[in-house]
Amino acid sequence: MNAMWVELKAIFDRLSIDPAVRAILLTGAGEKAFSAGLDVEAATSSGPLSKIGGKDPARAATALRRHILEFQDCVSSIEKCEKPVIIVLHGYSLGLAIDICTAADIRLCASNTRFAVKEVDNGLAADIGTLSRLPKIVSSFSWVKDVCLSARPFGADEALRVGFISGVYGNKDEAVKEGLKLAASIAGKSPVAVQGTKELLNWSRDHTVADGLRYTSVWNSGALQSKDLSSAMLSALQRRTPTFEKL
Amino acid sequence: MNAMWVELKAIFDRLSIDPAVRAILLTGAGEKAFSAGLDVEAATSSGPLSKIGGKDPARAATALRRHILEFQDCVSSIEKCEKPVIIVLHGYSLGLAIDICTAADIRLCASNTRFAVKEVDNGLAADIGTLSRLPKIVSSFSWVKDVCLSARPFGADEALRVGFISGVYGNKDEAVKEGLKLAASIAGKSPVAVQGTKELLNWSRDHTVADGLRYTSVWNSGALQSKDLSSAMLSALQRRTPTFEKL
Amino acid sequence: MNAMWVELKAIFDRLSIDPAVRAILLTGAGEKAFSAGLDVEAATSSGPLSKIGGKDPARAATALRRHILEFQDCVSSIEKCEKPVIIVLHGYSLGLAIDICTAADIRLCASNTRFAVKEVDNGLAADIGTLSRLPKIVSSFSWVKDVCLSARPFGADEALRVGFISGVYGNKDEAVKEGLKLAASIAGKSPVAVQGTKELLNWSRDHTVADGLRYTSVWNSGALQSKDLSSAMLSALQRRTPTFEKL
Amino acid sequence: MNAMWVELKAIFDRLSIDPAVRAILLTGAGEKAFSAGLDVEAATSSGPLSKIGGKDPARAATALRRHILEFQDCVSSIEKCEKPVIIVLHGYSLGLAIDICTAADIRLCASNTRFAVKEVDNGLAADIGTLSRLPKIVSSFSWVKDVCLSARPFGADEALRVGFISGVYGNKDEAVKEGLKLAASIAGKSPVAVQGTKELLNWSRDHTVADGLRYTSVWNSGALQSKDLSSAMLSALQRRTPTFEKL
Amino acid sequence: MNAMWVELKAIFDRLSIDPAVRAILLTGAGEKAFSAGLDVEAATSSGPLSKIGGKDPARAATALRRHILEFQDCVSSIEKCEKPVIIVLHGYSLGLAIDICTAADIRLCASNTRFAVKEVDNGLAADIGTLSRLPKIVSSFSWVKDVCLSARPFGADEALRVGFISGVYGNKDEAVKEGLKLAASIAGKSPVAVQGTKELLNWSRDHTVADGLRYTSVWNSGALQSKDLSSAMLSALQRRTPTFEKL
Amino acid sequence: MNAMWVELKAIFDRLSIDPAVRAILLTGAGEKAFSAGLDVEAATSSGPLSKIGGKDPARAATALRRHILEFQDCVSSIEKCEKPVIIVLHGYSLGLAIDICTAADIRLCASNTRFAVKEVDNGLAADIGTLSRLPKIVSSFSWVKDVCLSARPFGADEALRVGFISGVYGNKDEAVKEGLKLAASIAGKSPVAVQGTKELLNWSRDHTVADGLRYTSVWNSGALQSKDLSSAMLSALQRRTPTFEKL
Repeated sequence: MNAMWVELKAIFDRLSIDPAVRAILLTGAGEKAFSAGLDVEAATSSGPLSKIGGKDPARAATALRRHILEFQDCVSSIEKCEKPVIIVLHGYSLGLAIDICTAADIRLCASNTRFAVKEVDNGLAADIGTLSRLPKIVSSFSWVKDVCLSARPFGADEALRVGFISGVYGNKDEAVKEGLKLAASIAGKSPVAVQGTKELLNWSRDHTVADGLRYTSVWNSGALQSKDLSSAMLSALQRRTPTFEKL
Repeated sequence: MNAMWVELKAIFDRLSIDPAVRAILLTGAGEKAFSAGLDVEAATSSGPLSKIGGKDPARAATALRRHILEFQDCVSSIEKCEKPVIIVLHGYSLGLAIDICTAADIRLCASNTRFAVKEVDNGLAADIGTLSRLPKIVSSFSWVKDVCLSARPFGADEALRVGFISGVYGNKDEAVKEGLKLAASIAGKSPVAVQGTKELLNWSRDHTVADGLRYTSVWNSGALQSKDLSSAMLSALQRRTPTFEKL
Repeated sequence: MNAMWVELKAIFDRLSIDPAVRAILLTGAGEKAFSAGLDVEAATSSGPLSKIGGKDPARAATALRRHILEFQDCVSSIEKCEKPVIIVLHGYSLGLAIDICTAADIRLCASNTRFAVKEVDNGLAADIGTLSRLPKIVSSFSWVKDVCLSARPFGADEALRVGFISGVYGNKDEAVKEGLKLAASIAGKSPVAVQGTKELLNWSRDHTVADGLRYTSVWNSGALQSKDLSSAMLSALQRRTPTFEKL
Repeated sequence: MNAMWVELKAIFDRLSIDPAVRAILLTGAGEKAFSAGLDVEAATSSGPLSKIGGKDPARAATALRRHILEFQDCVSSIEKCEKPVIIVLHGYSLGLAIDICTAADIRLCASNTRFAVKEVDNGLAADIGTLSRLPKIVSSFSWVKDVCLSARPFGADEALRVGFISGVYGNKDEAVKEGLKLAASIAGKSPVAVQGTKELLNWSRDHTVADGLRYTSVWNSGALQSKDLSSAMLSALQRRTPTFEKL
Repeated sequence: MNAMWVELKAIFDRLSIDPAVRAILLTGAGEKAFSAGLDVEAATSSGPLSKIGGKDPARAATALRRHILEFQDCVSSIEKCEKPVIIVLHGYSLGLAIDICTAADIRLCASNTRFAVKEVDNGLAADIGTLSRLPKIVSSFSWVKDVCLSARPFGADEALRVGFISGVYGNKDEAVKEGLKLAASIAGKSPVAVQGTKELLNWSRDHTVADGLRYTSVWNSGALQSKDLSSAMLSALQRRTPTFEKL
Repeated sequence: MNAMWVELKAIFDRLSIDPAVRAILLTGAGEKAFSAGLDVEAATSSGPLSKIGGKDPARAATALRRHILEFQDCVSSIEKCEKPVIIVLHGYSLGLAIDICTAADIRLCASNTRFAVKEVDNGLAADIGTLSRLPKIVSSFSWVKDVCLSARPFGADEALRVGFISGVYGNKDEAVKEGLKLAASIAGKSPVAVQGTKELLNWSRDHTVADGLRYTSVWNSGALQSKDLSSAMLSALQRRTPTFEKL
């Protein structure tokens, strides 16, 4: 496994339980791309292609399955992180950029973002999360199949229209600025309320309404004992900004 | 439990099996608000906060869990009601207004409606249905997380764009008038067909397509024996408006 | 069962495993309609109504259930077909047209298309797939319930806005032309990648994200051993169009 | 609905939240039978047969479905009761006796108990719980199908061998005595621990291991804050019998 | 696919809807074996091994997957058959015998039966149903893993003790005689009741209790309208043997 | 988290992918006990009780939930380990011994083993796996609830009878000897077949039969390409003991 992904997981696992952290903004360095997708050289040297060579196909399959599961596990650390993760995309955002993006909570982008579920053009079905999460996070299954089967590029406006992205801004700097504003606003609220909200929405996406309601009742049977409720209400009555203890 | 919610359930349980009722329109009294959300006084006197005082935390958790489950059960009576429920919102529609709204079948609103999933601002994760139903009834999971984590207000146009609402009208009166027109149109159709459609859509939302198809086949194995089919077809051939027996 | 539907299934079952076929475009003959929906005469002579006459209601229910399951099975052959199916609709596209449409992968239409989930007007709840698939393939549950409960017609623009359709074109010829272009583009890509993508998206729609990720890892443990990956990457480096062996 | 079942539910709903109650023993009056099953007269006057007469088959189906759901709901109150329910059977225990029995937590019986899943002999598939719960609470699906399809009687020893019953005693009095001893033993333990155990076992029966573990962690995040843990441990160290506060 | 399995499916599909058939007994010809398991020659000429030769591993995987799915589909026709299937085993009952056996409803055997989940000894995990059904139809997961991982033989008594088999008889003839007696008894009962019971037990095995109860209520809303109920009850009162119309 | 459990996970994670390991036997040191259950001192110093002190109950709940999830994760490493795990118990096997035991594949014990699901006696519901796994791995839900609610001890014979244990031996040494024999037998078989069998049985326990069959077909589409099949068959024909390459 490429060290970068192992480190990504290590970081998100730490942020998940660091009481000083209340909201996370994930963005890409540089001007041109969040991620240009699969690096052919990496794929050959440390990626799937390196797992196969000369092996019995069943044994190659085991090596590949372990590799994919480990890679998925790294990217899923964003979804499993207990704190909200806002992602800001810009420029080329291909292949793995989409896998990462679907694991984040709130997706914002610059108007120059150029998306593509690029994997079929590399001869494979996307396997690090896009195909499992996309049907559950955007509106139109016809659109999902169109972009996943054709690998065609799409821009920020189309991404906004179908609900993949919930905010488009003029350029990367503006998008990051808005993302930070949103992060700050969330960080000012009760972490018991915020982190419960993330957990309950993710659980509900994957369960029936009945199971969602029951899990919620058990979750909140502990969470409602927080003094954050009375702080929040008192502050509202007194028109003060409340502060909440770390979690 | 606040008597209002127990009564709401009693009403919807009765409407559900009253053969004279074929469609229901739910709207709020007054001009300013459908619901301004959690009433701080109620929360303290009869709501969650009243369940805790001085109890062993595990015993407080039991009291809270029972309270939440009972409250959910009241609001879910709207979803479980066998007749279609059209909701018309206007003005402030915060917190519980959203919980109620997600349990209805068709959501309409006046252009002045001001929505917010307000709970995190009160120090809690919404637990009466919003977080369990919202991911399954609107388009964009990024938008859902944005409004649930930030508690920011949003208006009728945004609600329409993301599919939370399916019709916006100039003001409350117009919205109610359109809602009543829609209710009348549905009430004129076969109640066997209409109530089967509500049930099968709700079941399918929570099950795989394969389980949806099988349940549908069993449901319709009884329902297709209705004389409503031949009435409907005959009326269509004769260009008459059919009437259907009560259910 | 009407012979047409048995034949439809036979065709799609054959296309599903025919190695020469890589993408399928399904469209309707004639200018006026893709399908005007339930044929009253057919319903009476070979359809549900013909199954009932004089039978004990429990025995009629068995006959009806078998009939519905067989009919569903015919239409589901489109979804189960391993190759991507692009459907192009035009003119009247009522009732069964919607059932068929929801089983296809990518939905395109001409601007004159007039849709309706017409079944409640015929005295029944739609039972050949619409009610089971629609809540999972379009954005707004309020809209889904509106059109299914009211049977009201809607046009191409509304279908596009809610994500039911992902492309609207001036007329049937243009829509077919664009559909064929898309089919050709998909057919030029690795069939291992394309068919895996269809399967993994359909599986994921019906399972949790965790189950989606695990199934994906097992699927790709075989698929990534394809030489299509190295062909695709090599062609990309050499800026050549790759060709891929049949599947 | 027969008043007896409505009352049964009312009783169990009350016991479920009565803090003075910690364990429940359910047994039958008289010497000859726990229940001889469906009462033909009742079935005709207030049961399913009374719902049909002269109705359109689809409308009769609605009446029947509501009747079955209400009946199931009454019997399921035993399973939903938060306190453990020990059932003691004796003599004829046919039809509904089995439905009730499968909803209890611990099943004991006298050696003279004569069981049968009698419904097919009355011309119907059992619909008040037996067919839904039996495959999940006893060992052998072949045995389950044998007794459900053939309606043949089976005795206490066979019931013990296949795990349907977990204790057989000489006669009704002895069985009740042992049941009360078990109830007393359970009643002496922490109600937080006992009621949590019932809930978590029932949840786990119906969910994957992964969902069982997660729900357990949320449940116990509140329950472990109980002072019952330190009481129990301290008492163990001091070889005293602990007492626990009501719940 | 070996013609024998295609034919097996054709036969069970026909029996499933043939109104003259009410119960089915499946047994093996000859004295020595129900099935000695995988035929090495068949495996090489028409089985999995014949699908691979020289293919790209991803394309071989597609061929194998289609082969397994088709084979599973043939054997699952026994489970999907609407009529109860009693299987009687004797002698060697290895490999595929177990797959077939797990798809039947009631399992009986002669005392000389020698079972083994033999597949790991042939270098593969059993893939025609044993591993998917065995954990749901016998008592002990430790025993299931023992016999599936070790491929060790086990006899009729052990099979009875763990609940895999529900009846052991002296020899094949006696077992068949008892099986026929059971089949005759089932065939004399209401086919509406019997076939509903099979369907509801199979559905419940794979769903939560809540989903089992709901499906049951819908199923019986049609089935209880059968005149078989009144026939059965009247016959019971009059101490006559009822007869029931075909289904 | 107690270091022992973190280490247990580290060991099983390593064994899971170490190609030299083909089967694992887990047993306890010493003569008196596999595990006497919760260590009161540990519970107070590093266990749940240490997480609470003085915290806001909602924040204590978060600390407890993280603790339980991490502890569960350690023990679940036994279940997730790709190699079969045979556990041999002896003497006192209380509380955590049962949690660990339910995560193993094959359970054997000495005749002196004294089991108890001890947690309710410590004032808590078992939360490290017992309550989630026990209903799925033994025969009788009545027995499961009896031993979990009453915390009563049970011996080796009772454990064998209900299917919790699949083999009882005279003493610990004999049990270990038999366990090693079984491990050696499994280790001599194709690791592709053995590890596939473990995975497919665990998957099937938690999914419907239909999902079990489909997952199996995808899994074996890679695994059947192993040369282990032809080795195994050839060896069988030549009456040789086959050897299989590491995995």
